[in-house]
Amino acid sequence: MTATTTSDVFSILADASSTSARGFRAAALAAGIKPSGRPDLGLWASEAPCVAVAMFTQNTFPAAPVVWSRDRLRAASRAQAVVFNAGNANACNGDGGLDDAREMARLAGQTLGIDPSLVLCASTGVIGQPLPMDRIREHLPRVQVRADGGHEAAAAIMTTDRVPKEAAVSLDIGGHEVRIGAMTKGVGMIYPNMATMLAFIGTDATLDESFARQALKRAVDVSFNMLTVDGDTSTNDSCFLLANGLAGAPVLSDPSSPDAERFMAALDAVCTTLARKMAADGEGAEKLIEVDVTGAASEADARAAARAVAGSSLVKAAVHGLDPNWGRIFAAVGYSGAQVDPRRAALWIGSVQVAQNGVSTAAPREAAQAEMQGDEVRLRVDLGLGRASARAWGCDLTEAYVVENSVYTT
Amino acid sequence: MTATTTSDVFSILADASSTSARGFRAAALAAGIKPSGRPDLGLWASEAPCVAVAMFTQNTFPAAPVVWSRDRLRAASRAQAVVFNAGNANACNGDGGLDDAREMARLAGQTLGIDPSLVLCASTGVIGQPLPMDRIREHLPRVQVRADGGHEAAAAIMTTDRVPKEAAVSLDIGGHEVRIGAMTKGVGMIYPNMATMLAFIGTDATLDESFARQALKRAVDVSFNMLTVDGDTSTNDSCFLLANGLAGAPVLSDPSSPDAERFMAALDAVCTTLARKMAADGEGAEKLIEVDVTGAASEADARAAARAVAGSSLVKAAVHGLDPNWGRIFAAVGYSGAQVDPRRAALWIGSVQVAQNGVSTAAPREAAQAEMQGDEVRLRVDLGLGRASARAWGCDLTEAYVVENSVYTT
Repeated sequence: MTATTTSDVFSILADASSTSARGFRAAALAAGIKPSGRPDLGLWASEAPCVAVAMFTQNTFPAAPVVWSRDRLRAASRAQAVVFNAGNANACNGDGGLDDAREMARLAGQTLGIDPSLVLCASTGVIGQPLPMDRIREHLPRVQVRADGGHEAAAAIMTTDRVPKEAAVSLDIGGHEVRIGAMTKGVGMIYPNMATMLAFIGTDATLDESFARQALKRAVDVSFNMLTVDGDTSTNDSCFLLANGLAGAPVLSDPSSPDAERFMAALDAVCTTLARKMAADGEGAEKLIEVDVTGAASEADARAAARAVAGSSLVKAAVHGLDPNWGRIFAAVGYSGAQVDPRRAALWIGSVQVAQNGVSTAAPREAAQAEMQGDEVRLRVDLGLGRASARAWGCDLTEAYVVENSVYTT
Repeated sequence: MTATTTSDVFSILADASSTSARGFRAAALAAGIKPSGRPDLGLWASEAPCVAVAMFTQNTFPAAPVVWSRDRLRAASRAQAVVFNAGNANACNGDGGLDDAREMARLAGQTLGIDPSLVLCASTGVIGQPLPMDRIREHLPRVQVRADGGHEAAAAIMTTDRVPKEAAVSLDIGGHEVRIGAMTKGVGMIYPNMATMLAFIGTDATLDESFARQALKRAVDVSFNMLTVDGDTSTNDSCFLLANGLAGAPVLSDPSSPDAERFMAALDAVCTTLARKMAADGEGAEKLIEVDVTGAASEADARAAARAVAGSSLVKAAVHGLDPNWGRIFAAVGYSGAQVDPRRAALWIGSVQVAQNGVSTAAPREAAQAEMQGDEVRLRVDLGLGRASARAWGCDLTEAYVVENSVYTT
């Protein structure tokens, strides 16, 4: 289930953004919600109404914008825009929070000249403080979406992110060029199901609602749900997929059709690219950790083991310290719940095999350490039990993570 | 299920150690296993054979001493001694590791003049390196157990622990003074089921084997299994309870008898005291975090919620930074799997209520912050759904944790 990245299926677009697909527009401005005074309020919209599906946090304290958006999409899988803000999560705010999300959607609908029921909401930032609605009422009507506004929106959804995260691809569907453009933000309170993240994915493909839902679930399962920064699942996670059909390509509905498979491969690639960017930009992170588990008895086992390794505080700290302390990796696999036979397990740090049949290969410490020097550290565990595999992403644990999360209310 | 600590049930012994109960002896010396040259090899033994029960790690890469000890106790719930070392976990060492554990038990039996099948093993330290058996062969015969050797043993089982951890109580059973004395070590790779920990509990009570097993399970469930330092479950966790009957008190077998209940309350108190000491001494920790969850729909929910809060990296970092960022606490409850109604949840930091009915009480930030100044920070979440409760322990996340775990192979 890892993403196909063969270039004959799709092309990677150089100037990627959430407005890369036809008819998508965005803009943002500084409304004074972030204490820093940076842009924090914006709109992402399609010229035409879209088939819309989404995946939301499983946290039982869902934020008000999650409740609003989920309710809209339960009523009908249609949407045309997402209004978003950073600097305040609008979570744990009770009925007042829901009123505020509803008003944001109404103001956004007025600004865009569309029905407010077609407007979804996304917020990210500190939990438990009311939204400064006076600022939103003042500034939201001034947001003017543009086809070149994607980068502006990607910057405005950032919280502790150091860099904006965007990806886009194009592919041919029935002789029509179809594009998928997306943006995400992280980068703390990140854990599968889902990360603390907002993801906005817009495509000009024509998608059947049921197919859109399946394609998004598959893409999230191999990307954002395989990502961990700190093991904390947020109250606000939302991943939106909007398809406006403006490429004029044939409708995709049967997931087993060749065109649908190619679209899904492209969507997987977009989401996987963004997941890697989020891991690399994890709070305080200096290194991306990519964990492959192969030879598992089941895919569920492979996923559980890969995520446990990527999420282990001790593995993360060891990677930070360039310490090829591989026992910590087996220990993480050992508590993941995956079926394990210690006598069959093998382990690689980069290209250096450090364990075979569950015991040390006596590879030189320096050789393994050399594989940990770069910005990306690859770990592979082969369980020797079956053919299932999975890939997960995480980041090293640094002093900066602690400083960042102990000094500021984020 | 929190421990009874009423002083009319038991007395806390001032000079507590694993040799506080009659007939228990211990000693340790420096065999050169720890690079620091500190004491690292020892014996803990009873004058007379004991009813012996234990709980072990659920990690599927169990260390060789765990496999050895588990096999011994499956064959018969009898033991008379534990041979232990720190500085090397004897984990992920394959068949060679098992041979080494067996030889350690044999050497210990010779040294003590007892049957090696009555000797259990415990190791802690780095994973995946063979035990230096030459040093163990040279030094183990020189270990001479003494009734006053408990503190020496508690120091020798330390790895990254900053302080030794011991507790002991006495109580009256049928007119006889019964004692329970114990030692533990932590303090990284600590997570419920179980912590990276070794615990040695010796009592001179007379325990029926089945009762001993039940009493230990209950005590571990409310103590060590409610403890988290970093979410990593080790390969070596072992908690031993040995009962030699030397107090001459009546046998305890029916868990519902008043004497058995009092013994269990005393055992709970010993284990809870040690769990708190381990949390306070978590790697890099500056503060103990005690989390109470009340009003839960079930005890399983209360336990899950309390452990999620105590284990949240973001809550731990916020406590370190004296940041009363209570949304992170609700977020942790929200991903714990516990049944939650956000409109009923309430939250206290120390004695300051910061949330009611799921939203802020608008308590002054300074008031909540003042409750976080001391060495112990108490958090309480009331879910408002039922009558179940649980208590968990953790520690703050500090820069020192990262430094400690990234610079050294521990």
